[in-house]
Amino acid sequence: MDDGSRTQRVPFDELHRALATVLEREGFARERAAACARLFAETSRDGVHTHGIARFPRFVRNIRSGIVFPDAEPVKIGGDGALERWDGQQGPGNLNAWASMARALELAQSFGIGCVALRNTNHWMRAGTYGWQAAEAGMIGICWTNTLPNLPPWGSASALIGNNPLVIAVPRKDGPVVLDMAMSQFSYGALEGYAGRGVSLPVEGGFDQSGELTRDPAAILEAGRPLPAGYWKGSGLAIALDLAAAMLSGGLATHQIDPDFDRETRISQLFLAIQPVDRAIADAVIASLQREGVRYPGERVLRDRAESLQKGVAVDVESWQWVQQELPAS
Amino acid sequence: MDDGSRTQRVPFDELHRALATVLEREGFARERAAACARLFAETSRDGVHTHGIARFPRFVRNIRSGIVFPDAEPVKIGGDGALERWDGQQGPGNLNAWASMARALELAQSFGIGCVALRNTNHWMRAGTYGWQAAEAGMIGICWTNTLPNLPPWGSASALIGNNPLVIAVPRKDGPVVLDMAMSQFSYGALEGYAGRGVSLPVEGGFDQSGELTRDPAAILEAGRPLPAGYWKGSGLAIALDLAAAMLSGGLATHQIDPDFDRETRISQLFLAIQPVDRAIADAVIASLQREGVRYPGERVLRDRAESLQKGVAVDVESWQWVQQELPAS
Repeated sequence: MDDGSRTQRVPFDELHRALATVLEREGFARERAAACARLFAETSRDGVHTHGIARFPRFVRNIRSGIVFPDAEPVKIGGDGALERWDGQQGPGNLNAWASMARALELAQSFGIGCVALRNTNHWMRAGTYGWQAAEAGMIGICWTNTLPNLPPWGSASALIGNNPLVIAVPRKDGPVVLDMAMSQFSYGALEGYAGRGVSLPVEGGFDQSGELTRDPAAILEAGRPLPAGYWKGSGLAIALDLAAAMLSGGLATHQIDPDFDRETRISQLFLAIQPVDRAIADAVIASLQREGVRYPGERVLRDRAESLQKGVAVDVESWQWVQQELPAS
Repeated sequence: MDDGSRTQRVPFDELHRALATVLEREGFARERAAACARLFAETSRDGVHTHGIARFPRFVRNIRSGIVFPDAEPVKIGGDGALERWDGQQGPGNLNAWASMARALELAQSFGIGCVALRNTNHWMRAGTYGWQAAEAGMIGICWTNTLPNLPPWGSASALIGNNPLVIAVPRKDGPVVLDMAMSQFSYGALEGYAGRGVSLPVEGGFDQSGELTRDPAAILEAGRPLPAGYWKGSGLAIALDLAAAMLSGGLATHQIDPDFDRETRISQLFLAIQPVDRAIADAVIASLQREGVRYPGERVLRDRAESLQKGVAVDVESWQWVQQELPAS
């Protein structure tokens, strides 16, 4: 991990079991606890630390404060072809998203392409999870989510738009290509990591209090003005993704979502699965880049995963201690 | 126009008629000449000068050099549900793209969502055209294209990836929202415009010969290193869009496309149309941004269009003279 926190290695199965046990105590049925815990554990296993176990204590707090309903499952509310609309009923965001991509994959088996628009759901944690899900089923997966307002659009100093992560995943023989990008150039977590280590950002990452573009992470955090990726481009893309997610699901758009970080809920998401005609093309494209030393989206994951399975999953000590305190005394 | 070229105003109908006449002389059937000319004239009318009449002389050269076949129409090669694959047969890129989005819209009427993957086509000129097409039909339209290799990916100084324009359009009562973004922060045309006027870019736009990020447009052009929008983010997105377009159409990926600007052909594109459940959401989202003084994607188009229809379409004098020389003496 690069945020300066102390870490330790925990075997994957032990991590998975511990998280599942905590979730059962929070009211999850056994199978749903195991599935939800698996998604958290796999996220840490794959090196996406911000949305793995490090996010788990907040997830449990959101259950306790009535934002996330453990038993709630998505309900179909419309659609009778390749496009369906579902209501997430404020269930656990990762289980809702997994179910939605699974349904999009089924629709794509029948129609060539499948689309599920999901409203009233919760944060899906690691966006890339559902891209991997599609690619491992041999499909191209595209999905995105809106979020609470957390990013100033180009032309404003106020957080009016979401950072709306977008995923595009394609299957490939040697492991899928999975693009997983939020619309901010750097996440708040990344800015805090750089600031904590006292180093500059590698590129401009936001505005300071006087409205100047800067590489100083502390100044950006102080001003609350992270930058959309590509300036006006990421800003426009975030607006378009929010519109499409809300208009297709009939759910809330970013400006209607509670801006309190701890009360973000009822968000809108879109899941697309499409049957590729030719999977070998991906191998040729990636080979053409690797010959030139260029990394592809998602390349690091398989390496991190292998290391985690061999040495144990790297978890931050603080989150792991929190989990252990929640476990029943044995 | 902001590239410093001299312009004059020409009535829309006169512009349309002149372009159609030239195309008929190049071998287009009358109806196809009118349709193709209309798309060029509407592009200039809407203020997107780079891909309107300014691009027309090169389009005619591409016909004469055997890159674009005037009579060729797309042929269906696969798919029997909501996803179809078509071969563009190297026909005119804008007519092929229009036909493909029209077919995606038909499929969406039947299935809720429609997808057309198109291979072996030519440059579609203004990307946003097909977004407007979908939105004016009441649908959400998403489309993208790959291109010749014209952009260095993050981590390389060589132009290995395409700038792969992406369009997301949503219908709205007071005019659609149409995001039309290439994956480079600035197009070559924009860099040349800034350089010609001797002014700096508003933000970093590429690398100079020594590999430093810079706002100097001339230095970027000299080095041939424009920047992907959002650095690694636009680079990754360009790679993902190329993969999806080629894998879904079975066509060429960017690394297989002739890198000669005048010989770019056989590109791959994707067209998605999706039925929104709630169009009023778009009005509320845009109103929430406009209250804060934030512009939305495509906002400028309706204003430019109205001005063009009132005062005549602004065209650069050089291109307009070229067209008039191609017209038969009357």
